[in-house]
Amino acid sequence: VKIRVLGSAAGGGFPQWNCGCANCSAARAGSANVRARTQESVAISADGDSWFLLNASPEVRAQIESFPPLHPRATRHSPIAGVVLTNGDLDHCLGLLCLREWQPLRVYATAAVRDGFMDDNALARTLQRFDGQLHWLPLVLGQATPLLRADGSASGLTLEAVAAPGKLPLHLEASRAESAEDNIGLWVRQEGSPHALAYFPGVGAYRPYVFAVLERAAACFFDGTFWSSDELIRLELGGKRAEDMAHWPVGGADGSLQRLGGLAQVARRILIHVNNTNPLLREDSPEHTALRAAGVELAYDGLELEL
Amino acid sequence: VKIRVLGSAAGGGFPQWNCGCANCSAARAGSANVRARTQESVAISADGDSWFLLNASPEVRAQIESFPPLHPRATRHSPIAGVVLTNGDLDHCLGLLCLREWQPLRVYATAAVRDGFMDDNALARTLQRFDGQLHWLPLVLGQATPLLRADGSASGLTLEAVAAPGKLPLHLEASRAESAEDNIGLWVRQEGSPHALAYFPGVGAYRPYVFAVLERAAACFFDGTFWSSDELIRLELGGKRAEDMAHWPVGGADGSLQRLGGLAQVARRILIHVNNTNPLLREDSPEHTALRAAGVELAYDGLELEL
Repeated sequence: VKIRVLGSAAGGGFPQWNCGCANCSAARAGSANVRARTQESVAISADGDSWFLLNASPEVRAQIESFPPLHPRATRHSPIAGVVLTNGDLDHCLGLLCLREWQPLRVYATAAVRDGFMDDNALARTLQRFDGQLHWLPLVLGQATPLLRADGSASGLTLEAVAAPGKLPLHLEASRAESAEDNIGLWVRQEGSPHALAYFPGVGAYRPYVFAVLERAAACFFDGTFWSSDELIRLELGGKRAEDMAHWPVGGADGSLQRLGGLAQVARRILIHVNNTNPLLREDSPEHTALRAAGVELAYDGLELEL
Repeated sequence: VKIRVLGSAAGGGFPQWNCGCANCSAARAGSANVRARTQESVAISADGDSWFLLNASPEVRAQIESFPPLHPRATRHSPIAGVVLTNGDLDHCLGLLCLREWQPLRVYATAAVRDGFMDDNALARTLQRFDGQLHWLPLVLGQATPLLRADGSASGLTLEAVAAPGKLPLHLEASRAESAEDNIGLWVRQEGSPHALAYFPGVGAYRPYVFAVLERAAACFFDGTFWSSDELIRLELGGKRAEDMAHWPVGGADGSLQRLGGLAQVARRILIHVNNTNPLLREDSPEHTALRAAGVELAYDGLELEL
């Protein structure tokens, strides 16, 4: 599997438009120890020809331009054969509305995520300009789904949706019932390869069954949103704890780093969906040093790997 | 009035994600005669302290980062005191959904544009996380509206909405009734200054009353979407004529350039909202030469002027 990180920040990006915290200020000042990041999205491909986006960030246009294999190869064309959604958060879905201009689009998502996006959403009609423009393919928990090339043939990649502790998107909390399908991780395999990718950008808490998946992967991306539970509270940026937003903090005795550090058999363990306030974003921070000491990496825009 | 062009392309930007036309290919190749452009949005300010966005493009995050006066000046802050919408097209409105993260937001729009965005739109609830987060202020045709600083005081700028020939956004065509408020131009004045700005990024046809407004301006931005009526048809990129999309072509005997060229009393006449297929984007094209010969400019991202 060819993998390219298009964006590695949580919703709002880094720096965030209305944030002047130390991290955001350092990024704007061009500090050598801090890299700006767009919002989380990863491109994957079996053959380097057909590509799939894991989540469609609001910044998808710039992200496509940043990676030449995603550029069109004809007057009207896109090598992007499909988009996979891990939940209905706006930082994962808003980019769908930018992938219009009369281009057919396959979107892989659970029924809950699909309905959360399509119900009560007149904006989505921009993707329904002709019959078949928007084609939803269902992800069912625990069931393998082949990713298709634009011509409908098998791309060589299959994925399986794994329920992950999460929550409804903020804008749907009052209107929809919760479901185990609201937030998923992905188990991605390439035909003929023993090496799997686990993609879990949002994980609200420790679950043994999630780690039973991770430990079989050759590489995993994992929720790196917050370092600590009270990160926003201490910066006086809001009254919510990380867990209230369904993000398991990385740091501390009960943090995800303790668990991820133990997965030495997973060659690449990479944090993604990093919030602008996370001290990991400063590469000279003690938190970043602790991360590297545990054998865990921090995703950045442009990171590539191949399994 | 201080004016900064944040983005100058039509919907889809330049290059456009699924377009490999000669223009887009040249932009990707870094041709010296072609500049990449983000989607149309302009920032204005009376004092350089409080700023207002004319339209909120999907690329608003990168556009804010590109212009330091729009950066926050405290841990939670934005110098953006409001957003003005000229119509409900997604390339003008989608950016509103990126201006969240618990920041109050004033949006100035006609009732038709406001309702077109808010009705049947669960995504907009991301801007309703607390009472007063999203505050719509009505623009009424022919009536002056003061633009307010964040603290509610007068910013020194007033604007007046002028009906412009247009149409409903594509995604609302089937569901809403047409109104003269669907598409407007803006007449922007600064207190104490004799110099006005006219902002008309979408104009579907010639109207004497629009030109009666333009001719009194010190600077005007005008619809530069298409050079010719059959631009997309000739490139085999769609069956629609420019006029079907409510954009008056720039070129030809009946084009807007003939009219704009006659407005020699308007010191700056600037085309904006330029589609990726428009030959004006090639600065060595005969069309671009004709534009300059008529005393008309082409907006680019980063262009600044002051009236």
